[in-house]
Amino acid sequence: MFIQIIEILGTFAFAISGVLVALEKRMDPFGVLIIAFVTSVGGGTLRDVLIGVTPVTWMLNMTYVYVILGATVFSIIFRKYLDYLRISLFLFDTIGIGLYTVVGIQKGLIMGLHPIICIALGTITACFGGVIRDILCNEIPVIFRKEVYATACILGGFAYFILRKLPIDDNIVFVISGSIVIAVRLIAVKFKISLPSLYKDEV
Amino acid sequence: MFIQIIEILGTFAFAISGVLVALEKRMDPFGVLIIAFVTSVGGGTLRDVLIGVTPVTWMLNMTYVYVILGATVFSIIFRKYLDYLRISLFLFDTIGIGLYTVVGIQKGLIMGLHPIICIALGTITACFGGVIRDILCNEIPVIFRKEVYATACILGGFAYFILRKLPIDDNIVFVISGSIVIAVRLIAVKFKISLPSLYKDEV
Amino acid sequence: MFIQIIEILGTFAFAISGVLVALEKRMDPFGVLIIAFVTSVGGGTLRDVLIGVTPVTWMLNMTYVYVILGATVFSIIFRKYLDYLRISLFLFDTIGIGLYTVVGIQKGLIMGLHPIICIALGTITACFGGVIRDILCNEIPVIFRKEVYATACILGGFAYFILRKLPIDDNIVFVISGSIVIAVRLIAVKFKISLPSLYKDEV
Repeated sequence: MFIQIIEILGTFAFAISGVLVALEKRMDPFGVLIIAFVTSVGGGTLRDVLIGVTPVTWMLNMTYVYVILGATVFSIIFRKYLDYLRISLFLFDTIGIGLYTVVGIQKGLIMGLHPIICIALGTITACFGGVIRDILCNEIPVIFRKEVYATACILGGFAYFILRKLPIDDNIVFVISGSIVIAVRLIAVKFKISLPSLYKDEV
Repeated sequence: MFIQIIEILGTFAFAISGVLVALEKRMDPFGVLIIAFVTSVGGGTLRDVLIGVTPVTWMLNMTYVYVILGATVFSIIFRKYLDYLRISLFLFDTIGIGLYTVVGIQKGLIMGLHPIICIALGTITACFGGVIRDILCNEIPVIFRKEVYATACILGGFAYFILRKLPIDDNIVFVISGSIVIAVRLIAVKFKISLPSLYKDEV
Repeated sequence: MFIQIIEILGTFAFAISGVLVALEKRMDPFGVLIIAFVTSVGGGTLRDVLIGVTPVTWMLNMTYVYVILGATVFSIIFRKYLDYLRISLFLFDTIGIGLYTVVGIQKGLIMGLHPIICIALGTITACFGGVIRDILCNEIPVIFRKEVYATACILGGFAYFILRKLPIDDNIVFVISGSIVIAVRLIAVKFKISLPSLYKDEV
């Protein structure tokens, strides 16, 4: 129940982040909806396709569809006022990636995959919706350039596998490692920490 | 038999629309072929992968491959005269999306998916070949910005599920809802109707 | 054993080619790693997804992951000196596409697919890592424009199916057709042969 509420908030925030990018590109309502959809469920969809869980998750659970439709209509109508929600949306989004990371890791564990692959699946679940959104909008994905986003997922993922070796209840492992993802992202944004961009001296 | 002819005409028209975009980007013959291929079968391929029907359809039916190869060679040779075929190609293309939409819906029904998901699958089948084409050509997909294309598919999809509740033969449901897709697109192009592009006032 | 060494060299060279493109785009270390990964395993991943072999190959074999991680760290550290390795990298890369092409063909044969589809799968395995890399970096894929890369794979693929009809040992068919891919590419690069880019006279 608690997890479902978080999942809905995360889906909602992801969808709105998609709407905001689509509006900047002056898309029509259909384009805005697709971008909202892809941002929300794209990461989980890619994960499902790579591990062979089909039909992919969102096709079997109409909650995602309704939340994304609602978020899109809501944010198209109130598009001039979305800036006032910026902090709430940022928090939902951050909670969403924490949850998505752990959900992705657990799907990998169910398939019996290696911990590093599970962490990759968690990171894909949390981050690749945004990557596909940026590709569809003809941008180099923002998380490849300046966001501490994937790094938070990877650190939370390692925490998950360390905690799992200790005599701790599975639910607590879930909550702590998800919280680490959230904390790393909040701290990085608060203190403007990001990975340095790399380049060769002579280009 | 009748449906197969339509499918071949649609595949042919989709392939040529891919060739035209690839020529504008001055690709080499291999690039042109890939873009033709992706435009024709990309939507159905994405649908198959999402619902787990693999190997994807075109790998099991060489007709697609031969039609696309033929369309590519034809349109490379006659590339200077393709403008004369514009109206025929537009008609084939429009008939193709009508057919592809209903085919996609039916694949969703076979998997036991919710009507809204089926409509999404129909729209993906008809429209996402063009989306992948535009991504490979480094453009924002045209259907997100100005084409009444997806909207026609969605309206036809709703018609399909309304008609299906009536005591009508399945084949007639198929033909009518496909025709609605075609009619909506023809009317929209004829009267230059499109969805408004959205943006925030202050950008 | 011999094949595994070639595969590791190919994976290594592909990963570094990804790093080089990512550095030009001034990505952060995470972005560089993802591009290296996608360049190395993207083609095989797309092939696996299209034919329904899941979880995809690299998730079940940690060798790929370690080689790519190693190649990425190596080439980030020595990024200023990579130019000195240009010829070695080009050779590894070329050997890699020869191997990947034949591996892809054989996966198609195992699924009982038509020879033309098998050749397409070989070409996808060898070339689409680079295609996905270029899309993520917001470029029109280079192989659609000027590289004799796919052409080499296709020629090697036809050779494979011609040789297979002769009374020759399977391993020798493997080696000869892979070598043809390598030879065509080397000759094309040496003599600066490429397919002409196509365009309509009036644009």
